[in-house]
Amino acid sequence: MQVLIIGGAGMIGRRLAARLLADGSLAGKRLNGLTLFDTVEPEAPRGADIPVRCRQGDLSEAGVAERLLASRPEVIFHLAAVVSGEAETDFDKGYRVNLDATRGLFEAVRASGLTPRVVFTSSIAVFGAPFPDPIPDDFHTTPLTSYGTQKAMGELLLADYSRREIFDGIGLRLPTIVVRPGKPNKAASSFFSGIIREPVAGLEAVCPVSPNLRHWMASPDAAVDFLVHAAGIDSARLRGRPNLTMPGLSITVGAMLAALGRVAGAEALQRVKMERDPFIEKIVSGWPSNFTAARARDLGFQADRNFDDIVRAHMAEVA
Amino acid sequence: MQVLIIGGAGMIGRRLAARLLADGSLAGKRLNGLTLFDTVEPEAPRGADIPVRCRQGDLSEAGVAERLLASRPEVIFHLAAVVSGEAETDFDKGYRVNLDATRGLFEAVRASGLTPRVVFTSSIAVFGAPFPDPIPDDFHTTPLTSYGTQKAMGELLLADYSRREIFDGIGLRLPTIVVRPGKPNKAASSFFSGIIREPVAGLEAVCPVSPNLRHWMASPDAAVDFLVHAAGIDSARLRGRPNLTMPGLSITVGAMLAALGRVAGAEALQRVKMERDPFIEKIVSGWPSNFTAARARDLGFQADRNFDDIVRAHMAEVA
Repeated sequence: MQVLIIGGAGMIGRRLAARLLADGSLAGKRLNGLTLFDTVEPEAPRGADIPVRCRQGDLSEAGVAERLLASRPEVIFHLAAVVSGEAETDFDKGYRVNLDATRGLFEAVRASGLTPRVVFTSSIAVFGAPFPDPIPDDFHTTPLTSYGTQKAMGELLLADYSRREIFDGIGLRLPTIVVRPGKPNKAASSFFSGIIREPVAGLEAVCPVSPNLRHWMASPDAAVDFLVHAAGIDSARLRGRPNLTMPGLSITVGAMLAALGRVAGAEALQRVKMERDPFIEKIVSGWPSNFTAARARDLGFQADRNFDDIVRAHMAEVA
Repeated sequence: MQVLIIGGAGMIGRRLAARLLADGSLAGKRLNGLTLFDTVEPEAPRGADIPVRCRQGDLSEAGVAERLLASRPEVIFHLAAVVSGEAETDFDKGYRVNLDATRGLFEAVRASGLTPRVVFTSSIAVFGAPFPDPIPDDFHTTPLTSYGTQKAMGELLLADYSRREIFDGIGLRLPTIVVRPGKPNKAASSFFSGIIREPVAGLEAVCPVSPNLRHWMASPDAAVDFLVHAAGIDSARLRGRPNLTMPGLSITVGAMLAALGRVAGAEALQRVKMERDPFIEKIVSGWPSNFTAARARDLGFQADRNFDDIVRAHMAEVA
């Protein structure tokens, strides 16, 4: 089986590629080839014993999606997106990449006559405050960002193309991924990873919100597990509603920091300075913090067990 | 104030135009001009004492939306759509008209620098079974048709463009409109009007479903009331969620027929033949039949009082 990862150079895409190559199979079938596509040239994973094609390009350009389908993938992971902050500052780019390129990919699949499983990463950003607690699976999508709007529109397309049997889609609303490796960025959510990653690396970090702030999180490993599990789910079990809120940990910043202290030690914890930033607090307070995720759990998607394990896994990775 | 009605030759558009000309004002402002646009040349309303421009064209063609904005409308009613049946049989046309032309209109408004009130007609087709009874305002949109998908996507765009203050949008999910004048058509919902309209006209009609089937309906007059009311609502009262399920009558086919007998007489009722059609019953059973419509009611939108009045109004109109 051929597999295509769009967004293959991203944090999740690279981990997914490594996982698929390690497993050697997906959805019960042997992997014969893997294509990684992104706006920057994806790095070829080391030690792959099957052919791995790395392709660079812009999915929103004419013909690009069509060429990607030449390998006749049976599973397509569509992870590529302009992130929340950029989609908010660059209105046109957000719609072009997150909506038009997604639709272009779906149209290319339609024209190809292939009927692959398409795993689409959506986001909890499709939801906007005010919320019930917890948020049930049948809660409406009223996004408060253009990014969330574009993801919600992608979900609707995915469901309609799947209903018409153009492909066999499943959409995963990912929690905020913590701990993201790398450097702090300007995203309002950056601190969720920063308050763990920086102290573990011996650096100071600023926590701009109250310790009581609660959020919905999953580790990078859990996200890759979701994607791999999604590829193998019998679509009849989705009962025509292929977009699922993924399970996560509903955890306060205070509990995250307590876990940091337990796992990484008191010195690490002392590197976190509490300096509340009303601007960031206002943005983050509009985000959802707790879901039932009942359908996804029934379908076998599993949240991280606890935040201590997330800190531990991050430390093992950077050690 | 200038007003633009896109879909001005349709059943609702013509009634709305006549209503606006009769009122002479909208949202507390005097009407100075009205533009009616449709794919067929709209008929000029009689006896208008303000200028009425009738324009024919295809909103999905480049430049058409831009030219329509030359009159600098303060209120735009966007009623135009490929209907449910056609959007299902012609996938490309449905997306081109219902999604792309809607987005093109929104983009033209963005480029114009105008910030009009945009009243967008959505539909209860954004919902798909299974449903709770009644359906609350925060129930998710999982459409079971391409038409419903396109309307749900239009709602998301409307909310995002409004949030960004590109315009001041409000979306109305209309119930099934009964009694539609004219001839029976191939829509699965055609019989809801037919079982009243045909007997009143002295013709036989077939009722293809059980008398116990319940559905969500509003009269043409109620729909026009919704549109006029929507044009004047203070957007602060929408609290960032500008898409509203309109109130309606949740009524069974049996109760509709009883009203027909009461208002139009026993002979009229006898012209309805009960001949169940499993194909139509299956489609219709996936449609929503009952909503709280609590937000819309709080905002002053009013359902028809009872079905007897709907039959009476239809009879008065065709008399």
